[in-house]
Amino acid sequence: MKRPLQLNDDRLFPADARMRDIARALYREVASLPIISPHGHTDPAWFASDAPWSNATELLLAPDHYLYRMLYSQGIALDALGVPDRNGAPATDPRDAWRVLASHFHLFRGTPSRMWLDHVFAEVFGFDTALSAETADQHFDAIGAALATPAFRPRALFERFGIELLATTEGAHEDLDHHGAIRASGWKGRVVTTYRPDAVVDPEHHDFATAMARFAELTGEDVYDWKGYLAAHRKRRADFRAAGATATDHGHPTAATANLSSDEAERLFRHIVTGNSTPADAELFRAQMLTELAAMSVEDGMVMQIHPGSCRNHNHRLFESHGRDKGADIPMRTDYVHALKPLLDRFGTETRLSIILFTLDESTYARELAPLAGHYPCLKLGPAWWFHDSPEGMRRFREMTTETAGFYNTVGFNDDTRAFLSIPARHDVARRVDCAFLARLVAEHRLADWEAAELAHELTYGLVRKAYKLDDPAFFPAAAAA
Amino acid sequence: MKRPLQLNDDRLFPADARMRDIARALYREVASLPIISPHGHTDPAWFASDAPWSNATELLLAPDHYLYRMLYSQGIALDALGVPDRNGAPATDPRDAWRVLASHFHLFRGTPSRMWLDHVFAEVFGFDTALSAETADQHFDAIGAALATPAFRPRALFERFGIELLATTEGAHEDLDHHGAIRASGWKGRVVTTYRPDAVVDPEHHDFATAMARFAELTGEDVYDWKGYLAAHRKRRADFRAAGATATDHGHPTAATANLSSDEAERLFRHIVTGNSTPADAELFRAQMLTELAAMSVEDGMVMQIHPGSCRNHNHRLFESHGRDKGADIPMRTDYVHALKPLLDRFGTETRLSIILFTLDESTYARELAPLAGHYPCLKLGPAWWFHDSPEGMRRFREMTTETAGFYNTVGFNDDTRAFLSIPARHDVARRVDCAFLARLVAEHRLADWEAAELAHELTYGLVRKAYKLDDPAFFPAAAAA
Amino acid sequence: MKRPLQLNDDRLFPADARMRDIARALYREVASLPIISPHGHTDPAWFASDAPWSNATELLLAPDHYLYRMLYSQGIALDALGVPDRNGAPATDPRDAWRVLASHFHLFRGTPSRMWLDHVFAEVFGFDTALSAETADQHFDAIGAALATPAFRPRALFERFGIELLATTEGAHEDLDHHGAIRASGWKGRVVTTYRPDAVVDPEHHDFATAMARFAELTGEDVYDWKGYLAAHRKRRADFRAAGATATDHGHPTAATANLSSDEAERLFRHIVTGNSTPADAELFRAQMLTELAAMSVEDGMVMQIHPGSCRNHNHRLFESHGRDKGADIPMRTDYVHALKPLLDRFGTETRLSIILFTLDESTYARELAPLAGHYPCLKLGPAWWFHDSPEGMRRFREMTTETAGFYNTVGFNDDTRAFLSIPARHDVARRVDCAFLARLVAEHRLADWEAAELAHELTYGLVRKAYKLDDPAFFPAAAAA
Repeated sequence: MKRPLQLNDDRLFPADARMRDIARALYREVASLPIISPHGHTDPAWFASDAPWSNATELLLAPDHYLYRMLYSQGIALDALGVPDRNGAPATDPRDAWRVLASHFHLFRGTPSRMWLDHVFAEVFGFDTALSAETADQHFDAIGAALATPAFRPRALFERFGIELLATTEGAHEDLDHHGAIRASGWKGRVVTTYRPDAVVDPEHHDFATAMARFAELTGEDVYDWKGYLAAHRKRRADFRAAGATATDHGHPTAATANLSSDEAERLFRHIVTGNSTPADAELFRAQMLTELAAMSVEDGMVMQIHPGSCRNHNHRLFESHGRDKGADIPMRTDYVHALKPLLDRFGTETRLSIILFTLDESTYARELAPLAGHYPCLKLGPAWWFHDSPEGMRRFREMTTETAGFYNTVGFNDDTRAFLSIPARHDVARRVDCAFLARLVAEHRLADWEAAELAHELTYGLVRKAYKLDDPAFFPAAAAA
Repeated sequence: MKRPLQLNDDRLFPADARMRDIARALYREVASLPIISPHGHTDPAWFASDAPWSNATELLLAPDHYLYRMLYSQGIALDALGVPDRNGAPATDPRDAWRVLASHFHLFRGTPSRMWLDHVFAEVFGFDTALSAETADQHFDAIGAALATPAFRPRALFERFGIELLATTEGAHEDLDHHGAIRASGWKGRVVTTYRPDAVVDPEHHDFATAMARFAELTGEDVYDWKGYLAAHRKRRADFRAAGATATDHGHPTAATANLSSDEAERLFRHIVTGNSTPADAELFRAQMLTELAAMSVEDGMVMQIHPGSCRNHNHRLFESHGRDKGADIPMRTDYVHALKPLLDRFGTETRLSIILFTLDESTYARELAPLAGHYPCLKLGPAWWFHDSPEGMRRFREMTTETAGFYNTVGFNDDTRAFLSIPARHDVARRVDCAFLARLVAEHRLADWEAAELAHELTYGLVRKAYKLDDPAFFPAAAAA
Repeated sequence: MKRPLQLNDDRLFPADARMRDIARALYREVASLPIISPHGHTDPAWFASDAPWSNATELLLAPDHYLYRMLYSQGIALDALGVPDRNGAPATDPRDAWRVLASHFHLFRGTPSRMWLDHVFAEVFGFDTALSAETADQHFDAIGAALATPAFRPRALFERFGIELLATTEGAHEDLDHHGAIRASGWKGRVVTTYRPDAVVDPEHHDFATAMARFAELTGEDVYDWKGYLAAHRKRRADFRAAGATATDHGHPTAATANLSSDEAERLFRHIVTGNSTPADAELFRAQMLTELAAMSVEDGMVMQIHPGSCRNHNHRLFESHGRDKGADIPMRTDYVHALKPLLDRFGTETRLSIILFTLDESTYARELAPLAGHYPCLKLGPAWWFHDSPEGMRRFREMTTETAGFYNTVGFNDDTRAFLSIPARHDVARRVDCAFLARLVAEHRLADWEAAELAHELTYGLVRKAYKLDDPAFFPAAAAA
């Protein structure tokens, strides 16, 4: 049976009429503001080449671990979904894979993936029937046909989505050629990079050895010497800033920081690069590097983002067969109050430093993160992340952080996605959930309506520009001159 | 002053009219579905003998630790409530004990016990006045009179309650005579058992020595030899399957699992049975046994239930005077992400394995459990358990698990009770809370109404049948043949 | 632009009309009940001298770490706010400091500080315009003028606020002269003290050495001898009881307790006082002292309050420059289930003992604290504390504790503040949030309306009198005689 697909204008607003009216009014003012996406994982090659995408499966299913993790949890093999293993993409027919998704689409009821996909279907492709076994082929064909047209090329969609700025994430060991190509092309879309040095900072990273070698090549530094290693970071940070980066990103297992003396740090580094290190050494090195990188941020003004707390590649057998980032990362309990103290003891009162903290452990929102951000000038709270980037997750974030940290120690929304077509959907969800939260405060007479309107604008647009220094003349001399 | 007792038809539904209407409509379709109770602690002797219960105190108060823990917390001695100590039941007059409950019934305001008892009074006994000091005797007498009639015998109530299947829980060292008697009686009520081997798996269990001796007797195996011990488990699992069991249950202090080599496991076992083990050995043995029992589940298909995280018998003096299970068990912080990894490294991708996880630590719902169940094919989430088997607890369960694990990685409701008369009340609460949650999703345009209707049915009836393999021909050849 | 300031009569009530009506009716009956403030940090000197306060900044801003922590987090120096550093108050003009607060008042949107201050402005000072850059001087002047009048002297406000009892907190090493002066003055306002011995119990307290010396002077005991030290505590407890104290208070980093033998305790004490102790010794000593002080409470009936879980003075540089209590305390994960066991093993069933537990770690509400208080006769739950003393925080407290501990194992509200003028605001918030919670239970047919009315009275007035033994003839012989 075919079911209609129609996005309700009031979706995600409270059921209560009084609150719904307020939410609707707030949303009306922010719904069409430009999208700023200061942290994410889209592929800059898309915008460099502007080549068309191939088909629904390769664009929407095979790269989206939110989708295939759920299907996998219900016994569906990743091969059947077109997800590449260590030997590359399987010989699955994309249409067959799409049919599997379609016939199991009920599994996503109540999840954000369902909302995002429905938004993509309805708003990006203009469908009016829901995805199901019956409509699988129809959707697959229509998506394929659309993708072949100029209006669905990456740059055209970027413009249609109203994206003002999009940040990608590249490793310290990766070149920035695509970013160079985008700038050289004359296209006006603003795509910037982010400095993510995990592969050369985490000795337990699977690519550590090759990433270090590449890091040496790209910088011409002796990266196996402590001073050369630090100099290499400084060089690459400058390269990244030249490619538009205002921020760095650090995806460590924990939020641990350390404050070793220069000699201790150098000795530790020697253990690391000679392969004589224990897991405790690796943890200490990552911890010390957060502090070293904070020192560089004090120098060059780049905003640090810390994304800790994921136990990566938890499924041992899946990791062996399919490699990393296959939906098998599980959050862990995370401490911030002790973990960040060494870094904060050294730089906590530096006005040039700005650190945006993220978490996968919601029990830290009210207990640790809001109190930390509500005190330290250098700390801000990133939005609800990953598993918590969802209506309930965002609501809990506001409910558990606002009373202690306020709104102004938060930084707006991150979509943090590689699913480019879902970006408008994700920002729309965030705007709606924030408006719903503000509407409750207004309805309960905890905020005036004009304050809520100001805040809706800040949460959507103002705070992100400020937190990521998008108006900072040190990064954007042209903007300052204009 | 006597107060009326009347269960409102809209109880537990949202106050908001829009949501309430939706909840009411959803509930209407599931309210009278049969009850499946796949995990609980009722006494099979009741259904074997079908003997009448004696009086209100012995049926409703003295065995219910939810009730007497609250009264005890307010300074009332367990003796005054008819709760047995280590020497047996106290010489309290049951009517006096009932009066104590009645005159303190206000203490239960806002608790699920209050709701369950009111439901028992109104629906099972047909009372229209609330329990209070003034009505204590009237209720006591009326309950006593009812219990003496055939309509209130165990089997009659089982049928009246619309129970399709009821699972009890027996130890690996216990006989299954009552289950045999039920089947031999020709009565059609379906009462099955569950294999709970804690007393022979946990070296720190107070009954370990005697349970092991009995385990040996019942199986004819040398249970003090590692191979004999494992063989004994296999034999008893077969016995339990013959008594209808489709599941096992494991109530460990933590969720720790281990993956020792066969030699290491055997060596550890030797320490355990010779009494030369440390607390760390005991923990490692319990951990290893979860993995050994998972291996047996891969063979025989029995579903594993893991109920970790209770610090048993916290009140030292009460344990000395009254023994275990006296309302003095306190939840502890529980880790799953590291704890389960050894077992999952070995069996995480086995399609024959199914493990239902429970928790007393709600901070793990969104952080660990939903991500685990939303990835591993062998993992499912059990419902809100024990202290969280309550309207707010169930609501938090749905709010914190659904967005990551969806609805289809959950398994319906467990009443998990020894309070037989409260079973309809508990299932009714679960149905209402689920319908209220679904109603919010519909009202906020996150689900279509027809989807919510399908889900209400699944959460009430469909998922439990599937998760506990109640339609699996391996367990129920007759059902398959029919 | 000037904005009106008007407290809406329905603030903090649910938006839903049905629930709002119920909340309003409940609130009407408790709104004007007397204020009992059984735990806080106001200065008894105010009531002893009844001297006028000086100006808005010195009264409302400079002592309020809720306010200046938020401003500091946004890059404003404490000096600019008139907050004293280790050398005393800065030479900031109070009017300038006030202007800084006023022009950044938007930072407090969504925080309890905003609500409290608005209440102070509207209700205590009668303002009808909101604080902002434009009104900063007007407010500063009007507050200054009011404070110079007799109606705004401490005692006059105490009476106007309807305070029935106010407890301050003094150290074991501090004299009680102000309390003596209050009693000697003939003024009828009831101001009592609370025994807080942290500075002589915590070897890591910055004032430990000087506090011990003063402890010796005040008691005439050899406090460096274990028996003398314990005797000194007993003497001072008697002094405090004579100054109206019914309670003690313990602000330890953790909730750890210990149950050492007398010899072990004495040996540990010797390490402590000879300065030969490790951090682990210090922790064990604090733990043992909770048990020793519990033993004294069994003797003298004083109620213990335990406030654990704050990582004090987290900002190292700020501590060096400005000292303690400067808004840099960050909550930590806190365990209760294991931590309290040694004390409970010894005294858990003592009917004379009463311990009120607080937490900064909300994940313990449903998991540990409600189960503990819902079992042990000696344990009660203190209200949502510090960072959680806020509408959302209080709501979570009720939602996560009520179903297991009920309402009657809680103790009413604590304002726990040094901001005297905010006391009516804080109690008003608590009454409104409790009425809103009860209204939901009534609207969802989980409580009868008459029960909710009884509970609203208990939560506001009845439970606090009972929990803090304010009607106990052992403490108040006069009350008993009357």
